[in-house]
Amino acid sequence: MSYQIAVLSGDGIGPEVMAEARKVLSAVETRFGLDISYSEYDVGGIAIDNHGCPLPDSTLKGCEAADAILFGSVGGPKWEHLPPNDQPERGALLPLRGHFELFCNLRPAKLHDGLEHMSPLRSDISARGFDVLCVRELTGGIYFGKPKGRQGEGDSEEAFDTMRYSRREISRIARIAFEAARGRKNKVTSVDKANVLACSVLWRQVVEEVAKDFPDVTLEHIYIDNATMQLLRRPDEFDVMLCSNLFGDILSDEIAMLTGSMGLLSSASMNSTGFGLFEPAGGSAPDIAGQGIANPVAQILSAALMLRHSLKQEEAASAIERAVTKALSSGYLTGELLAADKRSDAKSTAQMGDFIAQAI
Amino acid sequence: MSYQIAVLSGDGIGPEVMAEARKVLSAVETRFGLDISYSEYDVGGIAIDNHGCPLPDSTLKGCEAADAILFGSVGGPKWEHLPPNDQPERGALLPLRGHFELFCNLRPAKLHDGLEHMSPLRSDISARGFDVLCVRELTGGIYFGKPKGRQGEGDSEEAFDTMRYSRREISRIARIAFEAARGRKNKVTSVDKANVLACSVLWRQVVEEVAKDFPDVTLEHIYIDNATMQLLRRPDEFDVMLCSNLFGDILSDEIAMLTGSMGLLSSASMNSTGFGLFEPAGGSAPDIAGQGIANPVAQILSAALMLRHSLKQEEAASAIERAVTKALSSGYLTGELLAADKRSDAKSTAQMGDFIAQAI
Ligand SMILES: CC(C)[C@H](C(=O)O)[C@@H](O)C(=O)O
Ligand SMILES: CC(C)[C@H](C(=O)O)[C@@H](O)C(=O)O
Repeated sequence: MSYQIAVLSGDGIGPEVMAEARKVLSAVETRFGLDISYSEYDVGGIAIDNHGCPLPDSTLKGCEAADAILFGSVGGPKWEHLPPNDQPERGALLPLRGHFELFCNLRPAKLHDGLEHMSPLRSDISARGFDVLCVRELTGGIYFGKPKGRQGEGDSEEAFDTMRYSRREISRIARIAFEAARGRKNKVTSVDKANVLACSVLWRQVVEEVAKDFPDVTLEHIYIDNATMQLLRRPDEFDVMLCSNLFGDILSDEIAMLTGSMGLLSSASMNSTGFGLFEPAGGSAPDIAGQGIANPVAQILSAALMLRHSLKQEEAASAIERAVTKALSSGYLTGELLAADKRSDAKSTAQMGDFIAQAI
Repeated sequence: MSYQIAVLSGDGIGPEVMAEARKVLSAVETRFGLDISYSEYDVGGIAIDNHGCPLPDSTLKGCEAADAILFGSVGGPKWEHLPPNDQPERGALLPLRGHFELFCNLRPAKLHDGLEHMSPLRSDISARGFDVLCVRELTGGIYFGKPKGRQGEGDSEEAFDTMRYSRREISRIARIAFEAARGRKNKVTSVDKANVLACSVLWRQVVEEVAKDFPDVTLEHIYIDNATMQLLRRPDEFDVMLCSNLFGDILSDEIAMLTGSMGLLSSASMNSTGFGLFEPAGGSAPDIAGQGIANPVAQILSAALMLRHSLKQEEAASAIERAVTKALSSGYLTGELLAADKRSDAKSTAQMGDFIAQAI
């Protein structure tokens, strides 16, 4: 089988962590005899600089011709003065999600053995560990609902956004959450605000209906405000969290921060054909870009997610994940994961990539 | 001066903690020569049982005739099977907020000296303490925006909610946040999602304009997803957080949980005439109701907020707050605030009330 990948490294640490993901991909290509070719395209700030917009047509065409998008990260101080709509993050990610109808966002987050001290949680809570998969609806809700805009003048001028969900949109993402739970702890926690939102009332209803097809999976509902609280007290009691677009944005970031190691987390955004965009959960970290100290693991793990979900190469995906686990559990780590007095053991971006590629 | 208070104790622990708040109010009436009279009304689950709805007309009329509402808490398993709109919380709180246009919700949350171990945060983070005032817009946004409802059929059936904010609504709540910051650390963090929501773009713009009248106050903007993260890492760097209705719902609960002591937190919801509803931030805790072990401090502190904001009795309000601090710092605590091996020192609900009333 031969595959075509659109590589969108973007800004900040994007290019340097992408280089390591490519190294690791090379290693799995050799080992598993895969034929993958790569085409690079500008996205985000660099695309604004080179083409005048964060998602140029050429980039979009390149993505259309590919089997998957491997995405780095976008944004930085240079483009922060731009109006929100033109900024790298919003101007690249939202149109990509909309254009390819990437409705399904998977964000796994777990506390790795030996890295409990990184979590901002109290030691007795982090000692229990946690492993949560956030399943976020990504092309509906208040992000894309119409009408959205402004009207009126003076003091009465007002802005409005529309949150909107159809049964179809809710049931397809719910189904994914229940299926994912089957490979895990068989539990789905659906997050909503059914005491206030009409969308959440429908959400809850449709999720209940879908649940009937998964009698082996336990379903519970939780209000978003309560979810942000319970994650702090008992993160270990959650398995799959099923969220609408906005609530998933908020919760998945809270969960990511609870691990204390954003540099290890990746995210998959997919449509119903298996096409997807795979990216690290963290940002472009312009403050450390170019120094060779950024953690490439999230980017490497997003390549694993790409192999699994878009290329259906489960063996190659697991091989990458095992190699990463080997690095982490041997204490082979970048500086931000080490205590201050151990920083001299820190591995560089390239050393991490080399170690993981070799371990394949 | 004479005042009329509508007392809505509600369900669960509501009545028992209200009894202690009344004790403490008696003590300040005597000490400061205030003339306060109280009328009790059913609200929430008990109102459903006695009158068939969570906010009977008689209760609403009683509130209209009063200078302020002292609210307990509502809800419990008995009423959870009801449709969301008829449930005690939603069916009582939202109409009260709407009817009296209680647009301004103040939720102060701080980590008390000596109670750092209660926080779910890592000890080095909680050791730095924090003291955050969440200023939440309470009668606009997606809670009350029209249209809200359902349409269509079958798989295409959809639900929709409207988030809506006018300049007027944003500027009046922003002004309150800036004024509050002046009595604190002179910093306002405005929370929005301006990279996605039209409402947030207007929000940011109006907040910037209001900020011009407060050159002594520092303003920063943060996205809601990032706010949930930064609160976990550096809660001590926030002072006043200014939020729309939905984001304030989520963030104020996260902050409350970060203190680890919900039984100490109270909340004020006010309109522009000074009329307000004052309540504990926690729920009705049906699991411990009737046992005499609930912490009455949040209810007592909500009486202090009522004295300050609606009755303009600052001295009486501070006297209550000092008495509470005295109890907490002498280790005079209910059981949930004590380590397991110190539970035998736990004070009852009534003992807490007596101590605080005596300390006035
Ligand atoms: C950049 C922004 C539009 C985006 C979102 O809100 O979805 C980001 O926060 C994310 O979670 O991918
Ligand atoms: C009960 C519910 C409608 C309410 C809200 O969402 O505002 C509650 O969560 C609160 O924060 O007071």
